[in-house]
Amino acid sequence: MQVKHPSDSITTLTDVVLPGETNPLNNLFGGELLARMDRAASISARRHSRRICVTASVNHVAFNKAIPLGSVVTVESKVSRAFNTSMEIYIDVWIEDRESGNKTKANEAIYTFVAVDETGNPVPVPQIEPQTELEKQRFDAALRRKQLSLVLAGKMKPHDATELKALFV
Amino acid sequence: MQVKHPSDSITTLTDVVLPGETNPLNNLFGGELLARMDRAASISARRHSRRICVTASVNHVAFNKAIPLGSVVTVESKVSRAFNTSMEIYIDVWIEDRESGNKTKANEAIYTFVAVDETGNPVPVPQIEPQTELEKQRFDAALRRKQLSLVLAGKMKPHDATELKALFV
Amino acid sequence: MQVKHPSDSITTLTDVVLPGETNPLNNLFGGELLARMDRAASISARRHSRRICVTASVNHVAFNKAIPLGSVVTVESKVSRAFNTSMEIYIDVWIEDRESGNKTKANEAIYTFVAVDETGNPVPVPQIEPQTELEKQRFDAALRRKQLSLVLAGKMKPHDATELKALFV
Amino acid sequence: MQVKHPSDSITTLTDVVLPGETNPLNNLFGGELLARMDRAASISARRHSRRICVTASVNHVAFNKAIPLGSVVTVESKVSRAFNTSMEIYIDVWIEDRESGNKTKANEAIYTFVAVDETGNPVPVPQIEPQTELEKQRFDAALRRKQLSLVLAGKMKPHDATELKALFV
Amino acid sequence: MQVKHPSDSITTLTDVVLPGETNPLNNLFGGELLARMDRAASISARRHSRRICVTASVNHVAFNKAIPLGSVVTVESKVSRAFNTSMEIYIDVWIEDRESGNKTKANEAIYTFVAVDETGNPVPVPQIEPQTELEKQRFDAALRRKQLSLVLAGKMKPHDATELKALFV
Amino acid sequence: MQVKHPSDSITTLTDVVLPGETNPLNNLFGGELLARMDRAASISARRHSRRICVTASVNHVAFNKAIPLGSVVTVESKVSRAFNTSMEIYIDVWIEDRESGNKTKANEAIYTFVAVDETGNPVPVPQIEPQTELEKQRFDAALRRKQLSLVLAGKMKPHDATELKALFV
Repeated sequence: MQVKHPSDSITTLTDVVLPGETNPLNNLFGGELLARMDRAASISARRHSRRICVTASVNHVAFNKAIPLGSVVTVESKVSRAFNTSMEIYIDVWIEDRESGNKTKANEAIYTFVAVDETGNPVPVPQIEPQTELEKQRFDAALRRKQLSLVLAGKMKPHDATELKALFV
Repeated sequence: MQVKHPSDSITTLTDVVLPGETNPLNNLFGGELLARMDRAASISARRHSRRICVTASVNHVAFNKAIPLGSVVTVESKVSRAFNTSMEIYIDVWIEDRESGNKTKANEAIYTFVAVDETGNPVPVPQIEPQTELEKQRFDAALRRKQLSLVLAGKMKPHDATELKALFV
Repeated sequence: MQVKHPSDSITTLTDVVLPGETNPLNNLFGGELLARMDRAASISARRHSRRICVTASVNHVAFNKAIPLGSVVTVESKVSRAFNTSMEIYIDVWIEDRESGNKTKANEAIYTFVAVDETGNPVPVPQIEPQTELEKQRFDAALRRKQLSLVLAGKMKPHDATELKALFV
Repeated sequence: MQVKHPSDSITTLTDVVLPGETNPLNNLFGGELLARMDRAASISARRHSRRICVTASVNHVAFNKAIPLGSVVTVESKVSRAFNTSMEIYIDVWIEDRESGNKTKANEAIYTFVAVDETGNPVPVPQIEPQTELEKQRFDAALRRKQLSLVLAGKMKPHDATELKALFV
Repeated sequence: MQVKHPSDSITTLTDVVLPGETNPLNNLFGGELLARMDRAASISARRHSRRICVTASVNHVAFNKAIPLGSVVTVESKVSRAFNTSMEIYIDVWIEDRESGNKTKANEAIYTFVAVDETGNPVPVPQIEPQTELEKQRFDAALRRKQLSLVLAGKMKPHDATELKALFV
Repeated sequence: MQVKHPSDSITTLTDVVLPGETNPLNNLFGGELLARMDRAASISARRHSRRICVTASVNHVAFNKAIPLGSVVTVESKVSRAFNTSMEIYIDVWIEDRESGNKTKANEAIYTFVAVDETGNPVPVPQIEPQTELEKQRFDAALRRKQLSLVLAGKMKPHDATELKALFV
């Protein structure tokens, strides 16, 4: 399988915030943002693997900034690292000021997807080669996150998580 | 006001088709596609004018190709021509094949938005200068469409619609 | 096939505007109105043809009047002209004042539907005979609109669009 | 206040059943039908009273017939009897066969609404005079239903419910 | 079939009220509450019968108290009486004060479900034995309600509705 | 402030999976599940703190098991640990077999909420005392997760994350 780049799977979902998508504080409802990120990330996973892809986990989502009613919200996702049959997807969320057009980072999230065949069995995905500096950092950190996820799930012993362990010793 | 280019207002809304968004034939429900285009177009109008924008009319939408459940759909909109207080937005809709990644044009639509101030009164918008060949064609045709719209609404006499008339005589 | 009248396909969809259906200005969201009109129009097409019908195009929608939260909105659609396998549907949208009960025209739209068989192939539809004065005007204008649509799509040469051309020369 | 007729408040909500509105058996989800009836009935109450109206109770809904995906459903509501500040709304639900156009009764429901002023206090509504045979039957039965409702809520003693009692003795 | 208790089918659906679920007075939209109760009640019916269950009727719903935007709403349902193939479900709706945590009864509803096999034919359900004082009262009243329902539908003569008649004579 | 227990904030949201909530594989759409968990967790946070609470982060969600259309899904959330102004919420998701009634664990998730006053500033929340064995394990692990979250965000140096570090050295 051909090696790919993060830019091959970049997906942009720009949309507004309507009243039916807010919480009682008149900001974008967290569950709606989680859903939009899931939709964009599933497309990145599919563009990388050209396979049916299913959400395996949400690894981290930081809600740093409330997103008010009427905002223009851009969800941008791309594959940050490919493992055997799974892919880590990194998602950046931006809002833009109507008058100045300035964009501000509102949230960041990391999801993991698995590629499956028609019967639901995992299938291999192409490897990935990061290109920009940021892509390289995210690629490296992805391995630590995967080890962490395995450690937390009790599927890897902490002392075997060499990349992660290196952070602490 | 500074002249702008169509590329300044380009807006991309890539999303999937879930079962709750289909019609009884298992294709994307027309009303849902109209809503997605309206959302993207309103963002283009806002990016061009940096104002609150409201839908004035839907001038033309051609549903050339059914969009099946599970498709990845890209709605791409940009301002094609600016008039005094209104903007014509041109929208292209693409679907992509999961296995090959090939993109196919599925629909095309033209919406008109008006920029307003906080009290709802129309306000002037920047003029636009098309750059690519396609942008120039759409810019020219926009004037004929505007005349046509005025003629059909009884607000312009056919023989004053010079651009439009030139098509027929 | 038996000739029909516009009144045979009249469809009324009266409904309220709830907060989940508004835009950030607290008026009915344009996309939601487009969806309601699409639903009503598809029923008119089906009542005329007794066939499965799919949206072919939205030819014109004028958003003349914002429709505030809490309004009672009546979408009324009927077939204005039948061609070989397609039908033009004319839609009138009314809102009514709660205290006086007076009705005001808020929008007008024109959609085109095609009748298809179970395999998706176009099938002929009954012809139509307008009865009221307004129905006759709309019936006549429908032919010009069809020619216009063909001209704009590059499927008819302007000088063959005889009905349309007559407007300008 | 002027006496009104049931026909003054007749409200028609004709709509289709899309996949996002079904239950796992591919029929219209009960909750969605209850919501559509609530929307139509609230409009009838408002047309009769010209006031803000709120749902007081759902007195009876019989789901006699499943409504399959893709059906055309007509919800027709009108005020059947007015009391001091409340109104009983009678709702008939019809589906129609696509090929023959024949209509079949699918459901029937009875809702009660109360008219309120801006501060939420109940206000008097016009009285009603039934005209057709069916309207007269429903008008008479409405009083028994009201007594029944009061008896069940412990707000009326059974032996004071004279109309209702007459059924049994 | 083994006798069951109301507590075997108890179902709790605690959820918030978001802006997209309100009416124009900023309270939970009646249709949305009806839908939530239908969802909870269908689970109770299924837990009692271990069968596919369909809504047969909504017998009574009293909207005693408006439920404001942002409220925490608890819908609690259980089977109150089982008949041959049908079950009466009693639903209590509570809201709780954010600061004190006090719960207040907001609504009460009674739905009837029928258990069916894969082909949609009614099948017998287990009988039920009430345990608490409240369960016993509701169990007894359920028979009167069933007779009433049959009388109102013209399927039982008033003088055969012995339980109901006893209320009045 | 009074110390509380995890059981004080337990929240149960039992609901069905309807077609409008599925993905193209006919399982519960991931974004919809994320939204349901967010709603339940926000109620737990509020019950613990008696304050307005906003989602700060989603720390981990494992989608171990697809949840098919028509399933009965129980989302159960409680506060696992309280920090100064934030609370970790642990969420367990169960599905149950219709015929046997057996419950199976489908997913697990960890969210963090912050309590705020009316102006959006963080306010202190009561401390928590775990009671069951499982609650104690989750309470202990929550501190490691918090340190991890700070380390990943660059807000804590790895060698200061004593609880976490202890796992690896």
